[in-house]
Amino acid sequence: MAQDLSFLDDYLVRPDPAAPRLGATVHGIDQTGAPVETRVVTERALTLYLNAQEIVTMMTIGDHPDYLALGYLLNQNMLKRGDIVTGIDYDEELEVVVVRTPERSNFEAKLKKKTLTSGCAQGTAFGDLMEAIDEIELPRAELRTSWLYALTRKINTTPSLYLEAGAIHGCVLCARDRPLVYMEDVGRHNAVDKVAGWMFQHDVDPSGMIFYTTGRLTSEMVIKTVRMGIPVLVSRSGFTEWGVELARKAGLTLIGRARGKRFVALAGEDRIVFDQDVDLVEDEGGKHRRKGEGAMNERAEIR
Amino acid sequence: MAQDLSFLDDYLVRPDPAAPRLGATVHGIDQTGAPVETRVVTERALTLYLNAQEIVTMMTIGDHPDYLALGYLLNQNMLKRGDIVTGIDYDEELEVVVVRTPERSNFEAKLKKKTLTSGCAQGTAFGDLMEAIDEIELPRAELRTSWLYALTRKINTTPSLYLEAGAIHGCVLCARDRPLVYMEDVGRHNAVDKVAGWMFQHDVDPSGMIFYTTGRLTSEMVIKTVRMGIPVLVSRSGFTEWGVELARKAGLTLIGRARGKRFVALAGEDRIVFDQDVDLVEDEGGKHRRKGEGAMNERAEIR
Repeated sequence: MAQDLSFLDDYLVRPDPAAPRLGATVHGIDQTGAPVETRVVTERALTLYLNAQEIVTMMTIGDHPDYLALGYLLNQNMLKRGDIVTGIDYDEELEVVVVRTPERSNFEAKLKKKTLTSGCAQGTAFGDLMEAIDEIELPRAELRTSWLYALTRKINTTPSLYLEAGAIHGCVLCARDRPLVYMEDVGRHNAVDKVAGWMFQHDVDPSGMIFYTTGRLTSEMVIKTVRMGIPVLVSRSGFTEWGVELARKAGLTLIGRARGKRFVALAGEDRIVFDQDVDLVEDEGGKHRRKGEGAMNERAEIR
Repeated sequence: MAQDLSFLDDYLVRPDPAAPRLGATVHGIDQTGAPVETRVVTERALTLYLNAQEIVTMMTIGDHPDYLALGYLLNQNMLKRGDIVTGIDYDEELEVVVVRTPERSNFEAKLKKKTLTSGCAQGTAFGDLMEAIDEIELPRAELRTSWLYALTRKINTTPSLYLEAGAIHGCVLCARDRPLVYMEDVGRHNAVDKVAGWMFQHDVDPSGMIFYTTGRLTSEMVIKTVRMGIPVLVSRSGFTEWGVELARKAGLTLIGRARGKRFVALAGEDRIVFDQDVDLVEDEGGKHRRKGEGAMNERAEIR
């Protein structure tokens, strides 16, 4: 049975697993000692400048340096929605990206106080992020379970670096049952930041959006989603307690362990509309399994 | 058939999933809208001081703050093997840990230049780490495939926060077929650091050791393993190109995608002794599957 892949046309941005720059073929041996060739993801350094000030050097797969740069600055509160960016210059050879704004920002003071967040951490000015969360009111919205199942099925079958080489995280900005912008990177913080940068650049209204991530629902992931103004966050991975607490405080709909027909919602349940007959949803076979934490972990859901 | 769990006696340190402090029970709904109770891992802040100097605030599950503190300082090159530590004070209420040394270190200069490494990143003084790698010569050692299969089977069946609540990384220090020290944390960098701290505190000879991680084999993970002086690094997850390159440069044995009977070795293959008949190894059933990336990802191995 040929698979219907016409939904791929829905994407505005999606992974390009064939891009030679993003992966390498390496040689090794397998469990029998036989030689194997395998694909691995390429990491490269990218040093970000805000005007003349060096901010950070990130390790990234290297696609979309412009969106990554913008998203990093946004999520570190060094740039705000509506701020003017006069230019973004990327030099591939120097591995440098420069974001230009009309005035200097006050980020230097903010850089002083760093908190490393859990999971994948970049050292964020944590107090600031919490402040920013308090100011945000997330919009009313709905999440139909039929959309949720359609989204996860589409995302799992979209050709990606994950399917090609593994060892990578993905984040997808979605509208209803349509995945729009699918970014991957070695760290999920980079993948989120690239989506945030894309949204900034295209001045996207986040109010009807759904954010999907392959990563865990940590405090960091919740804060970033809330800061982007997106009311629904979905993951196939699990939760941390603080992630749940923050989502409840912010009124974010938080759905985790979304695999096959199953999911668990631990915050903002009122946005969920149960319009899908669960019996008609296929469970994940090996073919669609992705970062599945397996049967053992699923036990935790039903206790 | 009752499972033989006597190997649990081998551990010097292992997860304590029953500790009330490490997890919380939260209420939500499942895919049918029915109420569920589920366990989630607790994250808490821990601020690390080296003498009077505040270094960083980390998010951690909060067990073993002493080992985490030592390991963080070691892996940031702020402390070296053989350095004298005069005391470690942990205040649970203040969420502060203080490591005391006889003299001030020169870490301030090092803090200036930060590189965020990929995957889970803490902003490490990257140039320093590379220097440290160049100075290290990893010992000759052997890794028998029979040990490897025994280790992964034991680790996957050890009661853990992972099995209890998911959304957590694990790192295990092993000797031959014996898992010795199994640390978990919300970020794998914390789990590694706790193992490194334990090794420092107990002045462990790393030369015959094997390091197992649930996380990906990024440059960061390779650098930390080499700095710990451990000659073999095993993961059930995949590789990044730079991780492979650094492992080859450092002469580290790098094994990834170790699940069931399968694995791929991409560096230091000469340490591997193929003493196990692969046909006698069980493939992972749902029961042993852990962060299995599923059939799709395994395709990448056999190309």
